[in-house]
Parts: sequence; structure tokens; C-alpha cells
Amino acid sequence: MLGRMEQRTRSWWGWGWTGEAMADEACSALAAGLPGCATDPVPVPEVPELRAPRAAPPAALAGLCTAEPAVRAGHTYGKAFRDVVRALDGDLSGAPDVVVLPRTEDDVAAVLDWAGDAGVAVVPYGGGSSVVGGTEYRGEGPWVSLDLTRLDRVLEVDATSRAARVQGGTLGPGLEDQLRPHGLTLRHFPQSFEFSTVGGWLATRSGGHYAMGPTHVDDVVESLRVVTPVGVSESWRLPASGAGPSPDRLFLGSEGALGVITEAWLRVQRRPEHRASAAVRFVRFPDALAAVREIAQSGVTLANCRLLDHGEAHFSGAASGGHAVLVLGAESAHGPVDVAGPLEIALAHGGVAEECTDGRDGAVASWRSAFLRMPYLRDGLARCGAIVETFETACTWDTADVLVEAVRTEVGAAAREVCGVDGIVNCRLTHLYPDGPAPYFTVLAGGRPGMQLGAWDEIRAAATEVLGRHRATITHHHAVGRDHRPGYDRQRPDLFAASLRAVKAVLDPRGVLNPGVLV
Amino acid sequence: MLGRMEQRTRSWWGWGWTGEAMADEACSALAAGLPGCATDPVPVPEVPELRAPRAAPPAALAGLCTAEPAVRAGHTYGKAFRDVVRALDGDLSGAPDVVVLPRTEDDVAAVLDWAGDAGVAVVPYGGGSSVVGGTEYRGEGPWVSLDLTRLDRVLEVDATSRAARVQGGTLGPGLEDQLRPHGLTLRHFPQSFEFSTVGGWLATRSGGHYAMGPTHVDDVVESLRVVTPVGVSESWRLPASGAGPSPDRLFLGSEGALGVITEAWLRVQRRPEHRASAAVRFVRFPDALAAVREIAQSGVTLANCRLLDHGEAHFSGAASGGHAVLVLGAESAHGPVDVAGPLEIALAHGGVAEECTDGRDGAVASWRSAFLRMPYLRDGLARCGAIVETFETACTWDTADVLVEAVRTEVGAAAREVCGVDGIVNCRLTHLYPDGPAPYFTVLAGGRPGMQLGAWDEIRAAATEVLGRHRATITHHHAVGRDHRPGYDRQRPDLFAASLRAVKAVLDPRGVLNPGVLV
Repeated sequence: MLGRMEQRTRSWWGWGWTGEAMADEACSALAAGLPGCATDPVPVPEVPELRAPRAAPPAALAGLCTAEPAVRAGHTYGKAFRDVVRALDGDLSGAPDVVVLPRTEDDVAAVLDWAGDAGVAVVPYGGGSSVVGGTEYRGEGPWVSLDLTRLDRVLEVDATSRAARVQGGTLGPGLEDQLRPHGLTLRHFPQSFEFSTVGGWLATRSGGHYAMGPTHVDDVVESLRVVTPVGVSESWRLPASGAGPSPDRLFLGSEGALGVITEAWLRVQRRPEHRASAAVRFVRFPDALAAVREIAQSGVTLANCRLLDHGEAHFSGAASGGHAVLVLGAESAHGPVDVAGPLEIALAHGGVAEECTDGRDGAVASWRSAFLRMPYLRDGLARCGAIVETFETACTWDTADVLVEAVRTEVGAAAREVCGVDGIVNCRLTHLYPDGPAPYFTVLAGGRPGMQLGAWDEIRAAATEVLGRHRATITHHHAVGRDHRPGYDRQRPDLFAASLRAVKAVLDPRGVLNPGVLV
Repeated sequence: MLGRMEQRTRSWWGWGWTGEAMADEACSALAAGLPGCATDPVPVPEVPELRAPRAAPPAALAGLCTAEPAVRAGHTYGKAFRDVVRALDGDLSGAPDVVVLPRTEDDVAAVLDWAGDAGVAVVPYGGGSSVVGGTEYRGEGPWVSLDLTRLDRVLEVDATSRAARVQGGTLGPGLEDQLRPHGLTLRHFPQSFEFSTVGGWLATRSGGHYAMGPTHVDDVVESLRVVTPVGVSESWRLPASGAGPSPDRLFLGSEGALGVITEAWLRVQRRPEHRASAAVRFVRFPDALAAVREIAQSGVTLANCRLLDHGEAHFSGAASGGHAVLVLGAESAHGPVDVAGPLEIALAHGGVAEECTDGRDGAVASWRSAFLRMPYLRDGLARCGAIVETFETACTWDTADVLVEAVRTEVGAAAREVCGVDGIVNCRLTHLYPDGPAPYFTVLAGGRPGMQLGAWDEIRAAATEVLGRHRATITHHHAVGRDHRPGYDRQRPDLFAASLRAVKAVLDPRGVLNPGVLV
């Protein structure tokens, strides 16, 4: 994109790389398994004609800008189901007027200055993988998508302190490539790893792949450097501090509404060399739930401890015979590890160990491979009119079983209501804490092109309602964006909302940054 | 105090219990070891006559109030060296006009309402153990000390999720007494444990006794309930969330300037049953520093990993022969533990293991006993005119050795300059993170009554300067209060300061709460 010779092309309408998208026949075959679904996929769309740009950046910024239709199209939405459906429908009425790709922090400041003067909204864009409407704009006026991926370097590595200074636009693979020669890793692998940036992770309080320990990127931040419309804010690099409320925690989760995170000092670690894993099948999901709670409270820190319910295990190929599957994994940079303790707990709760425990075959590998492939399958199903989306939450253990069951029931009922056929609501627990799990739900239901957006909005409303009634968070790690504002507004204390509005007025007095997000 | 039959009486002028204070002869003997110090202690003071109260709470609150001189005197200051010296001098000119002891959250709100109407400042008071001027008032007008220790109950225990709902005024021992029947503990033991409250810990981002893992109380918070002058803010109980900036993190560290923390859901855990410990001596401090860095980055989580430099080890009786001492401790609720790995690292860096490793004798016990006794010794030395105070910080490993040496040199020079004799600057590392340690310094210098305040202020200014120059935090866990504002204002990003001011204007529009703190 824009002068980079990529061997692969990013899909402007769907997930990931164009070459990885499902072929038509595969889409049909997949959709055939979903009752009530159309099985002829709509065509992969061409970039439609876009509205003429309504904003013209000044000459000094012109070299950083593009109004190229394919680029504007690719920056119109994130990668939620809603986004894919709208793109497939050819609805790019909300495309950015301009895409700006700053090369320096000063460029970022210059864009914010110009935008403030010109009354143009600025939506920060990292890898563009938001699944919550975080990178689009729903206002009326002109807007620019501020693509930060040219700020993609690891500027400094402090091997003594195990920390690295990283630019906000660094994509996951680029980060790890630059840390690898030092024998270091951030060890933060969200599902969107290939298509998301460090700055995006920080702005959305991203959750990594690891089930326990520091699950959110928040916990590996030493300091942040943030460009706001009124100046730059930089905190000191500190391993810990008790000096007033944390300045960094105000920007973590600010979703581009308070400033643009241009740099961060992050805690890195030695690359793990020792691994162990195991998989355990359960006949009864409640038994598995009890097992993972005991594991989460047993004082161990596992790299992986994912519980897939029957449907999720079946869908991912981790288990075919009506079982829930618990995938356990440990790793260390320091010495041999095992999963003996957690395995013992799982077996005591009625689990049955799978034979393969080397982490590269069996249920572990099946699930891992399906996990990375899943967004492409999602796109294929969407082309066939299916309703296919995920949402995640977190709650305390005392309500976990009730909540999971209520979501299954109520979201399932909503899907049946709007689709006219039974859908599927699967659950896995992606992250575990001593005081509660993070349940992650997948909704699948048969549908047809044209009805998908409205159908999903109704199903999503049911999900928001059941989460809110149980005081389970509207998002564990996908962020709020625009799609989850109703749930967020219910969850957030009113006085914190008022506080955020006051902070926004200070840092972004002209309301330039990501309008509609947070406040 | 006020209707409670205490077997022991809190000292109004010094640390802890009156019966634990040092006898005159012991003070003299201790001071005799400090060159240049007076050795006749000034008398333990009587409560001086206090200014007549300038504020009269309304009848509805009168039953919660006291203007009793001993109570007002005890609520005038915290327990910093400056506070003890001022109390010994009989300077209680800044005493609160009234001390209010609410019984309910509604009482707290009523006090804030009245204070706003009457133009009276309100300074929240937990256990009164602030060592940074957090619980006094330095303005001109009338003020009340809002003593929260009647809100002292554990309201609910969720054993399934391992969490407890605790009132903000619960003192450390009361908390543990109420959790013990459930087999649970918060495992948060600051040095002030007996004399500090849960709400105080939360408002000051207190650091516990444990060297690694969740060191700050911040990390065990599920939700907070806070009474502000404009209403109550309550967050949802969540094990984790990615929904916008954390509402709780705004109140954590807010030091009573944004609201009064009346309740919190906190993560508790099973009481540990297995322990192991060891002590290692080092001839050279840099070797010990290298050892603890390697331990901190070795993937273990120790309960204890305190490094005492030569002076600190000598002072506490942990080592008499010119050694630095590293105290290692592991604990678990789940199974046997050992400290073999960290011990091996320490020995590889030239450490020599002490013989006793059972955790109840030798260097470990000596240091532990001295640790708890230290504030009483401080008071005894203060009565003899000594300069005796501590401060703590945190920094990354790349600057740790340079910083510790710079503090020793520059703070030592300042002490020599103002006292005319060589003082002592000892260091221990109290908390360890993979990316840096928390060094804790003790300053001891001979002096005389009458010169202590000015002398300490000059020494403290030197400490603030050297910490700031190295971008080491002004406080790791003592908080900012009024005493550390200069260092805090230097450290805090300007835009975060502006943000906090905006939040303060929203939550405390009449500026009632702890004026002078934070903003």
C-alpha cells in the first residue's frame, strides 16, 4: 500500500489477505451446514465509486495523503461482521475523504492542527482490525482516516530492564521481527496480531492470546507518548509508581478519542524455549467450568487454559464426539515446564486426557489452526447471508454458569426469532482470572443477503441486554467503539462519564478526535 | 477512641500505640550512636491548647462529631518525621476544627453537603498513618478531619470468586480478622498495616509487604464505590475489562481529592500454608544488585526478595559484619515451596547463604522485627533532635545502580551540609519488577531540636532533585500528599495535570475535598 511492495494484498472488504479468502465453492459447502442459510455466495465486491473528497489537506500534508479509492475503501470500516456485510453490499457512503499516513510524530500533530482548523474529524487507524466500529466515522462532515502504520519501528531496546520503545503504528509481526534479534518478545498475540498495531492495542486495551498472567496489554506498559490536539503528553518510564492516579491508564482504552499514541515503552521478555500442553475432554460443561475455576485459583500461571464448549469444540475440530475440550499450555524461558497440576485438577473433575500432549497435534493444534482461520470462514459465511459474529465479556465466578447459560438461551432465542431457524451460540473461555473468566461467544445463524445487518443488530441487542443485566462487561478485549456504546453507557459510572467528557474537553477542545467514541 | 473500649491508646503525636513508644533512656542510648545528635530527649508532649473550633456542623451531624482536644490533636497530622517534630514542638496550629466519624455512607454524603455549603474543607482520614502530609490541611479556613474508621466491616464474602466487599474505613487487622474465618486473606501488609485502612490503601495506591506479584493494592480491585460531593460513583465487579479507560484507576491514587472511597470489592485468596525462606550475604552491593535483577527476571514470583545494603543490614541487626543481605521468601496456599532457584542465582553472584532458612530466626527474623519496630525508633530519635526519615522510589534496571549511588552521594552531602556532621543514607530494595526495583532509602543524621524541620526540608529537596533528574518516581507507595508535590508536579505530564483539574472541577466543584492534594 502506498509505495510499499507487499507480496500480498490486504482485503479492503473482508479480513486479512485477499489470497486467503475462501473460494466460492468452499463458502457454499460451509453454508450448506447452516440450516436456513443461502448457499450461493454473493460475489466478492469491486471497489464502488466513492463520493468526491470533501476535504483538502494543505500542501504541507499533501505528500502524506491519498484519496485513492481502494485505500479509502479499505479505511472505511473495521472488520466486524457488520463491516463486511456493508462492504459486500457496496455501501461505502461513509468512506473517509482522505487517508493520511504520517511519517513522523510532527506529521501527526500537523494533521490534528489542520483538522481542528478545518473542522475535519480524525479517526486514528492502526491495523484496521476493529470489530466494534472503532475506526469508522458516523458523523455527517468530512473526515480523515489517520493511518499510523508508517510509524512502525522499535526505536530502542533496553535489554538490561527488558523493555523496548516502540512506535504506535508497529504491526504485530513487525514488532516481533524487530525484537527477535534481541532474543526478546512482547508475548502479546491477539487473534488480529497480523493486522493490528501496538498503538491500537494500547488504545483498545487489547487482550493477548495468553490465558493468564498479564492478559491485557495495559499491564506491560512502562510509559506512553501521546499526541493530543493541544500538545504531547509523555509519562516517565517506571516499573511501578504510587504517584497519583496513573496517567497511562487514562490513555489506555481511550480508543483514539483523547490522543494518538505515537510511542510506548513496553515490558518485553525472553523468548520462551520450554513448552508443555495437554487437552482434556469433558462430557459435561459444568464439570469443565468447575475444573477451570479450580485451576484459575490454584496459583499457577498457564500460557493457555482455554475451555471450548461442545459446539465450539465441534466447530473447530478439536472434538467431534459431543465433548467440551480444555486446552492447557505452559511455557517458560527459564526451564522445563509441565501442566501436571492443572491436568490433575481437570481429571478430578471428570475430564479425560487426550493422548497427544506435544502441542502440535490433536485438539490443541486443531483448535489453534481453526482460531487463526476463523475470520476468513466468517467472511465466507457472510457472503452466503449467514449471521456470524462473536462477542466477549468477563464476569465473576459466582455468576459465570448462570451468565453463560442465559446468553446461550436469550441470544439463541433472538437468533431464532429474527432468522426463523435455530442458530448456534457457542462459548469458549479465553482468559481466566482467580475471580472470574472471560467467556467468548460465537453466534451462527442461517440468513440471506439483505437481512443480515438488521438481524445482527437485534441479536446483538439481546446480547447487550443479557450481559448488562448480569453486570458482565460489555467487552473484555474487543473495545467499545461505536457498536457497543449502549452497553458501555449502561456499565460506565455516570460520574466517570462526566469525568471523561471533561478530560476530552481539555485534550481535544475542538472535538477532532474519533467523534462518537467514548463520549 | 469515642466510645470504643480500646485496651491500648493511639499516640496523638507519634507512631502507633503509646505503650510501645521508647523510654527516655532507650532514646538517649540510641541517639548516642548517631554523631552530632543531642542525647537528651525532649519530653513526650501534652496536648496543647487548641484554637476554638471555627466550624459548627448542623445538629443532624453533631452526634458524629467531636471537638475533643486529644482527638483533634491526633488528627492534625499524619505520621511523617515532619509531623512528629511539629507535634513535639507543640505546633498544632493547623488542628482540625472538628473531627467527624460517619457511621454510614449517607453520613459521608451529608458531611460533604454541609461542608460545601459552609465553605469548610474536608480531609479524609483512614488510619492517619500518612507519611507525606496527606491527612493534614495547610489552608487558612476551617476544616474537618473525616475519620472513616467506623465504616469498618467486611460486608460480603464471595468465596466462589474469592472476593470480598469491604468498607473503606476497615483497618488492616480488622480486615484480616473478618476474612480469617473464611480461610481467606487480602495478603496486603504495608508497614502501616495496624494503622491504615482499606480506603486509605486504595486512595494512596498502597504497596504491600510482598516483593513481587501484585505489589500495589491497585491490582486486587474488582470495583469501587466512591462518595463524591456530586454523588456516588460505583463500578461493576469485574475480573478484567477492556471497556474504555478504567474508572477505578482514576480513583486509585486520588488521595481523597476526588471522592471518599466507602466500599470496594477486593480479590482475596486462600491463606498460605507453605513457606520457605533464606538469607544470603554479599560483600559487594553491586553483586547483590545484579543477583536480584536476575531473580526478578527469572520468572519466579517470590513473596519476599528484599535486598538490604550494608548500612541497612547493620542497622536492622540482619548482618553485623559489613555485608549486604538478601532475604528470600516463598509462600503458597497450594503446596510446598522452596527458594532454590533464586538462591542458586544469588550464590552464583558471589552471595553466601546463611545457615538458618526456616524464616523464624537469623537475618530474616532480625530484619522483620526491626521493620515493625522502626517507626517507634524513629520517634525516639526524633525526640533527641535527630533527622530520621525515609523515602522510596522506583526506576528501571538500567539506571538503578547509578540512581542508588547518586542518592547516597547527594542526599548524604545535603545531610552533611545542614547537620555539620556525616549522616547515614541506607538503602533497601523493597519491591522488584522484571523491569526495575523499588529502592527505599533511610536517612539518619545528628541534629538538635529546633533545627529538624528546616534541615529535613533541605535534605528532602536534594532527594527530590536527584530522583527527578533520573526520572525515578517521587513515590513508589507512600503517595504524594502535600510533601511531595514539587516532585510530583515535575513528574506528572502537564496534560494529565490539566485533565485531573478538569475531573476535580466535575466531581468536587466547590473544592471541598482535601484541598492542596494532587491539583
